Amino acid sequence: MAVDQSTLEIWQQRIDVSPFQRWLGLRVDDVDTGRMCVTLPWKEDLVSNPNPPTVHGGILASVIDLLGLYSVLTTGSAAIATVDLRVDYHRRAGSGDMTAEATIIKLGSKVSTAETKVFCGDGKLLASGRGVYLMAG
Amino acid sequence: MAVDQSTLEIWQQRIDVSPFQRWLGLRVDDVDTGRMCVTLPWKEDLVSNPNPPTVHGGILASVIDLLGLYSVLTTGSAAIATVDLRVDYHRRAGSGDMTAEATIIKLGSKVSTAETKVFCGDGKLLASGRGVYLMAG
Amino acid sequence: MAVDQSTLEIWQQRIDVSPFQRWLGLRVDDVDTGRMCVTLPWKEDLVSNPNPPTVHGGILASVIDLLGLYSVLTTGSAAIATVDLRVDYHRRAGSGDMTAEATIIKLGSKVSTAETKVFCGDGKLLASGRGVYLMAG
Amino acid sequence: MAVDQSTLEIWQQRIDVSPFQRWLGLRVDDVDTGRMCVTLPWKEDLVSNPNPPTVHGGILASVIDLLGLYSVLTTGSAAIATVDLRVDYHRRAGSGDMTAEATIIKLGSKVSTAETKVFCGDGKLLASGRGVYLMAG
Repeated sequence: MAVDQSTLEIWQQRIDVSPFQRWLGLRVDDVDTGRMCVTLPWKEDLVSNPNPPTVHGGILASVIDLLGLYSVLTTGSAAIATVDLRVDYHRRAGSGDMTAEATIIKLGSKVSTAETKVFCGDGKLLASGRGVYLMAG
Repeated sequence: MAVDQSTLEIWQQRIDVSPFQRWLGLRVDDVDTGRMCVTLPWKEDLVSNPNPPTVHGGILASVIDLLGLYSVLTTGSAAIATVDLRVDYHRRAGSGDMTAEATIIKLGSKVSTAETKVFCGDGKLLASGRGVYLMAG
Repeated sequence: MAVDQSTLEIWQQRIDVSPFQRWLGLRVDDVDTGRMCVTLPWKEDLVSNPNPPTVHGGILASVIDLLGLYSVLTTGSAAIATVDLRVDYHRRAGSGDMTAEATIIKLGSKVSTAETKVFCGDGKLLASGRGVYLMAG
Repeated sequence: MAVDQSTLEIWQQRIDVSPFQRWLGLRVDDVDTGRMCVTLPWKEDLVSNPNPPTVHGGILASVIDLLGLYSVLTTGSAAIATVDLRVDYHRRAGSGDMTAEATIIKLGSKVSTAETKVFCGDGKLLASGRGVYLMAG
């Protein structure tokens, strides 16, 4: 069942409130309660090692941080800050658009934990990790 | 004892090989064997939440990832990739230039571990964390 | 499809090579390529806070460390040491037997990553986390 | 300046409230505001791989988890649970007593972060890591 277009637009606008997230060029592809999927379009500015072009680990960490937070927000709960972030790098991320999917491991009243996976175009897992987020209230 | 200017320039060039690291605008301030310090100039593109302007956690994670790797490289050993990254966020990072310092926890033959701290202008700790890096050979 | 009894016994013996793992009293319940499930029987020696009795976080960390390693070993690849371990604690672990399941996130030639979840008797997630393991050769 | 004996005894009793911590046989060696040092006596039950005898990674993780929590408690603030734990293993931990020292990275009102290092008898770093602890109130 596809999410309707207006829901995607609402979440796209929330992501685009952040100048850095606009710079990343993230596109919201799917949203559900406790889950969000985005596309991260490749561009040369994302590159760490230019020969061969490899996406910087900090870019993948950024996506894992932010998408985990947004997956918590989709539940209607207010996550206000990242407490900590853990990222595992599994493969060299070459050129080409990437996708990422975040799901919630534990929604809590004080802190919540979400897990995000980043894939390259052929579906292979590039990086994955978790964020712990401080909840409001 | 101050490091000489030509050493700083060599490391600046190595950092600037990466388009993303050039985009961050990092400036190498100090280098020693197993240690590197940089300045991360503030700019609006780094912002997560614009009101009040807060630096994106992914930016701080990027600095912790890359500076730990460079601190390993200063030993003359070849670190070729980040295995994993852990970042703790301690305070909201408001506007203003930041500095970061990386030191080595353990230099190994298979993997090495480095720790990086990111400070705001008044010296308060904004974020800190560790990377594990895969060694060549 | 159930794993045969002799396979369970082989893995039970491998786990019981370790005095600490024998002390934990782990029982191998299921094994597949890249996956292992165990039961951790409750006993008072596991307790952190006695009032009300809560299983020590170090016990849960131990299970996550060791079961991830064994899940890598089930593939026939030789993991020789834990590089690092990350554990998220989701709920207070009260008295009662626990179960744990480990699966592989990425099997690599240099390092491998596995994820382990620990559940209480009613199926709720108590803790989960990841280990990175150094591979032989 | 040496801490007085009665202070050590108070903290020793607090550690010994936990059956698992008693089983570990931890001895409090030094305490200061935001810092605690313990000795972990070697015993065969701690062993992972018996040939040659190597201390189990879960034992080292346990010490890092608990000592970080106690270092927060020395400030008079109430830490009530571990949110998450990260452990880096640096060297094989052979037989012989170990020592550990925990210090605070950031004391916060919602969460606090502490770092713990575990050493073998000759002072080499065996493992180190961090815990994030949920604060009361």
